[in-house]
Amino acid sequence: MRDPRYDILFEPVRIGPVTAKNRFYQVPQCNGMGYRDPTAHATMRGIKAEGGWGVVCTEQAEIHHTSEITPFIEQRIWDDQDIPALRRTVDAIHAHGALAGIELAYNGMNGSNLYTREVPMGPSHLPVATFTHDPYQARAMDKRDIANLRRWHKAAALRAKRAGFDIVYVYAAHGLGTLHHFLSRRFNQRSDEYGGSLENRTRLIRELIEDTREVVGDQCGVVFRMSLDELMGPVGLHRDEAHDLIGLIGDLPDLWDVTLAGWENDSTTSRFEQEGYQEPFVTGIKKLTAKPVVGVGRFTSPDLMVRLVRQGVLDMIGAARPSIADPFLPRKVEEGRIEDIRECIGCNICVSGDFTMSPIRCTQNPTMGEEWRRGWHPEKIAPKGSDDKVLVIGAGPAGLEATLALGQRGYEVMLAEAGRELGGRVSLESRLPGLSAWNRVRDYRVFRLKQMANVQICLDSPLSADDVMGFGFEHVAVATGAHWRRDGVARWATLPVPVAAGAEVLTPDDLMQGGRPQGRQVLLYDDDHYYMGGVLAELLAKEGYEVTLATPAADVSNWTHATLEQARIQKRLLQLGVRLRPHRGLLGIDPEGAQLACVFTGDEERLPCTATVLVTAKLPHDALYHGLLAQQAHWAEAGLRSVTLIGDANAPAPIAAAVYAGHKYARGLDGPEDTGDSVPFLREVAQLVPWTAAPPA
Amino acid sequence: MRDPRYDILFEPVRIGPVTAKNRFYQVPQCNGMGYRDPTAHATMRGIKAEGGWGVVCTEQAEIHHTSEITPFIEQRIWDDQDIPALRRTVDAIHAHGALAGIELAYNGMNGSNLYTREVPMGPSHLPVATFTHDPYQARAMDKRDIANLRRWHKAAALRAKRAGFDIVYVYAAHGLGTLHHFLSRRFNQRSDEYGGSLENRTRLIRELIEDTREVVGDQCGVVFRMSLDELMGPVGLHRDEAHDLIGLIGDLPDLWDVTLAGWENDSTTSRFEQEGYQEPFVTGIKKLTAKPVVGVGRFTSPDLMVRLVRQGVLDMIGAARPSIADPFLPRKVEEGRIEDIRECIGCNICVSGDFTMSPIRCTQNPTMGEEWRRGWHPEKIAPKGSDDKVLVIGAGPAGLEATLALGQRGYEVMLAEAGRELGGRVSLESRLPGLSAWNRVRDYRVFRLKQMANVQICLDSPLSADDVMGFGFEHVAVATGAHWRRDGVARWATLPVPVAAGAEVLTPDDLMQGGRPQGRQVLLYDDDHYYMGGVLAELLAKEGYEVTLATPAADVSNWTHATLEQARIQKRLLQLGVRLRPHRGLLGIDPEGAQLACVFTGDEERLPCTATVLVTAKLPHDALYHGLLAQQAHWAEAGLRSVTLIGDANAPAPIAAAVYAGHKYARGLDGPEDTGDSVPFLREVAQLVPWTAAPPA
Repeated sequence: MRDPRYDILFEPVRIGPVTAKNRFYQVPQCNGMGYRDPTAHATMRGIKAEGGWGVVCTEQAEIHHTSEITPFIEQRIWDDQDIPALRRTVDAIHAHGALAGIELAYNGMNGSNLYTREVPMGPSHLPVATFTHDPYQARAMDKRDIANLRRWHKAAALRAKRAGFDIVYVYAAHGLGTLHHFLSRRFNQRSDEYGGSLENRTRLIRELIEDTREVVGDQCGVVFRMSLDELMGPVGLHRDEAHDLIGLIGDLPDLWDVTLAGWENDSTTSRFEQEGYQEPFVTGIKKLTAKPVVGVGRFTSPDLMVRLVRQGVLDMIGAARPSIADPFLPRKVEEGRIEDIRECIGCNICVSGDFTMSPIRCTQNPTMGEEWRRGWHPEKIAPKGSDDKVLVIGAGPAGLEATLALGQRGYEVMLAEAGRELGGRVSLESRLPGLSAWNRVRDYRVFRLKQMANVQICLDSPLSADDVMGFGFEHVAVATGAHWRRDGVARWATLPVPVAAGAEVLTPDDLMQGGRPQGRQVLLYDDDHYYMGGVLAELLAKEGYEVTLATPAADVSNWTHATLEQARIQKRLLQLGVRLRPHRGLLGIDPEGAQLACVFTGDEERLPCTATVLVTAKLPHDALYHGLLAQQAHWAEAGLRSVTLIGDANAPAPIAAAVYAGHKYARGLDGPEDTGDSVPFLREVAQLVPWTAAPPA
Repeated sequence: MRDPRYDILFEPVRIGPVTAKNRFYQVPQCNGMGYRDPTAHATMRGIKAEGGWGVVCTEQAEIHHTSEITPFIEQRIWDDQDIPALRRTVDAIHAHGALAGIELAYNGMNGSNLYTREVPMGPSHLPVATFTHDPYQARAMDKRDIANLRRWHKAAALRAKRAGFDIVYVYAAHGLGTLHHFLSRRFNQRSDEYGGSLENRTRLIRELIEDTREVVGDQCGVVFRMSLDELMGPVGLHRDEAHDLIGLIGDLPDLWDVTLAGWENDSTTSRFEQEGYQEPFVTGIKKLTAKPVVGVGRFTSPDLMVRLVRQGVLDMIGAARPSIADPFLPRKVEEGRIEDIRECIGCNICVSGDFTMSPIRCTQNPTMGEEWRRGWHPEKIAPKGSDDKVLVIGAGPAGLEATLALGQRGYEVMLAEAGRELGGRVSLESRLPGLSAWNRVRDYRVFRLKQMANVQICLDSPLSADDVMGFGFEHVAVATGAHWRRDGVARWATLPVPVAAGAEVLTPDDLMQGGRPQGRQVLLYDDDHYYMGGVLAELLAKEGYEVTLATPAADVSNWTHATLEQARIQKRLLQLGVRLRPHRGLLGIDPEGAQLACVFTGDEERLPCTATVLVTAKLPHDALYHGLLAQQAHWAEAGLRSVTLIGDANAPAPIAAAVYAGHKYARGLDGPEDTGDSVPFLREVAQLVPWTAAPPA
């Protein structure tokens, strides 16, 4: 079934003593489950192996209690107590013939050791480099510390081998670990043989690679992961230096895993970078080493993958996000089902799991993180439990996903959309600057729906409650979406803000439907804090409006710290000339301007403007739902058995939540009603040690 | 031994069917251990019971999976899977004759349910009110939701009873739960019988109190916790409304636990409020109810406690922070050891544990959070393991605590301080605006040290390595502190920033030692982000300087979000006229001003000033330590067996970390060397469920 032009992707690749069955390589990837949810994590990795990835890695694993990155919930391999959880992950990966990899991480000055209270260490006396300005400093490691670290790293590598891993990483990427800090002239201010020249700054890397090979090289491939550029000019690690380094130790590891640093430059969203964006940095690396090279770039296109291999840019196609959106990507290529690939949209809601210490989720793949605890498989779903027919009202992300999953289950489904276009908010938002890849949420589902004989799609079909009652469907899912509020209500103001007659007020809905302010001076007030405010400010500024963005938050698009986008968004707006008024709440709007208040002091200020765009809260479109509830006495005679509100029509949230709600509806349609009287998923809780256990001496 | 004037504090108090043995009441208090570290949490609570508190509560416990507050790590009582951990806490509390209380919390729109992916609920359609602008909305609860919540709350109360708790809370305080949201006109925009009038907005509270009494009232006291004022004027809950509410349901609960809202107004630091600061709000409550009342106010003074009881303001003396600083506070009052009370300094480093998802720590009590995992008891310590003599060099917080704990162990200790004052940075910093209570770190220790015959304190005693080698001590702890850097190095710039000749540059050390800028225009550059930058800006502004505070962060004293102080600090600085330049890094300083760069775009700006205060990183004073290491070959002949660097001299950090380092040194002096080859504390990891467990249908 496989198209022969993709054969090259299925060639085995040798990584030291082990061999990957193909070139598909799931690079280490954080997931917000870490030490807390081991079986959930193991199951998720196992499903990727089932989906055909030749190598499946865990996330970074903290190798030692003197280097942990609380509050983040990462994998740990501190001692033997952690091995059972890791072995479970290995077993899940091995069950499907993939190689299991682990990224051993000594984070050093990237963590404050808030959990263990150990003193952080780094190459020099410097404050810890965390995301949160923790008031701790790392101390400069002395020779004994370096000897300790080498011994600890060896011990962790041995534990990894005992847990059954096939690939063991030495990690120096992303600016997120001690080896990167030793390598970087920004952090390494040492005057001994570990500082100064590139050779000296590489010494610890060389030693750890050699140490690792010494203890696990008989059974495990030793992979070295580093970043090729920090994109900060000569003060940071940059291309020339990276190439020199590879020249120094080119054949020392069994495989090179190369990325950009920091994390935000590696996992860049589609708003800022296209598929394959790391190619210019990776090109030429293979000339510097005889060992295979894996790189990433949000790859979802097999043709691009083939070209990169054929041109000698990469040996293995690395992926984190594409493997989240579609764990079965390799198998779909193998089976000639390219069109079935559920392509990553590059929104980084997955990354937000790590930043919010919550299990990874995905806009495209609603089963991500639910594989074990709810038993959701990304490619398998139970056949229908009855011959009931289902009406899904609204073809936004919730309605499309509900219809798709119901269709896969074999239900007869009608999807009724009031408008002339499928996709709902996805179609509207994907036309905004930088968000075009988001239309994959719609396109993937619509493509599949159109092949389903049991699914009927009706456009231009606004429905009333009476219409629905007359149709004879047993089940109705109301996925009618939401609209942006026009009264300023959100977080800072939970009660409506006065708007004087004659004031021009627009919402994101107005702008997405083509409306524009009449005058040129626009206040965009953002009390939403996700992407919309920043995107619309960008849109208006590019169209020549004079835009002031005011927000009660400290910065623009504040929640996009969790998607690694915040700094890029604020930079872009500043460069477009958008004026910023952070820490300002909205008191009122009139035709000549707006009244703002400092969120700290309450001091008021006047902001002249000819129009105000309110990016605040949303209100669900739940009138149809309530109309149907009002007729509940007549449901039985109409054959109607359930009416369910899903997605934004229930509670506005990110697109991922709408897709999730649609999927959950379809999975649960013929199950018992969820009354909340029991926890509807499996979880693992801390194992109580015997009460009398004595602490260490 | 007890002073009779304190007898009143030891009267029993009846709380419904149970009776507290005295008036000391540890109110529910978050601790960053929650569901992750159950035995550590249980042991910590048990030690408070041992210390004499008549009532010991847990933190808030999430009652249901539709309302969890990830990323925070709180206690859970979702289902029976959580009972064993809770029962362990109850057992630990009961072992010492205290009543065990649990605060049942349905957080509702205060959480995004990032872990469970359930849709949050609240009184109205509004965005979730979290600390992080999560892009989720809560949906308005309908009648079925309210009925569900009542049933879930009853089920949780029953689980609490089965776990053995004596006191079960109905929680409506701090703005942090659904009952507060229903009560508040800011959040409750309902038009049914749960909205509108105060009686309607109180309906759900009344129902939950009645429900709880119905299922647990035979065995458990039912406590209602609410906030008396949100300090936001008439738009928020305020005193008059709170009094009206108490009038409505005054005798419904068995005890009233009254606080302020939000959390930052309840747990206010000593920088902003003095002991007993909630008295004006609590006064008069007892006239509105026949049931006992507990309130808080960072109480550490038994005389104040007595007055509040005698004057009929409170029946029970509530405490969270004072019970953290000294779990044995009640017993010390009982035993006539008032001077031994280790008084809370009101710094809120304890609160930062919750905000950083790490186990609670305390500046004054270094054993907090270590009771189980390291076996550290706040009042007991092993006797000395040898007759070795110890020299502690430096009488800052690390040196004082090391000396104290070594002295308690019976070691002969000499504490040598180079200067004329004990306390080190604590003495200096406690003279800064608002920080005077911090001198308790020094005073508590010095008072006790002066009673110890085995401890000798030497002031004015700067020591050289040769001096130390000549003294004949077997062990030397070097606790010589650190100084603030003068070169701009911290987080944004890790390499020195150019300072032109003639430019006036001061550091916090200069200012604390009495130095002041010569001109009036001062740039304070803060790349430290904890309290120091904000405190010094306040100091200088109050002295009449024209202060501009520039920082790479988005706001001033950014890390103080974790201590609930940030908004107060920024408000105070703005009101003092301090100009703020957030998101600015420092490029260089010259006699006429400084060059700043936007951290996003790199765009430069000129800031004229006559002096610059650099609040950046610190450098340890480790020269003496390295001098001693250089003579290691001669240690044996000098009788010297170990030299250890502790506190800021090792790695600059908060005062709490210095105290901790001193304590750890003293505990471990005669133990085996910590090579890091095993995890030096107990921990509990997730219990793997059987691999084949099927998920819920």
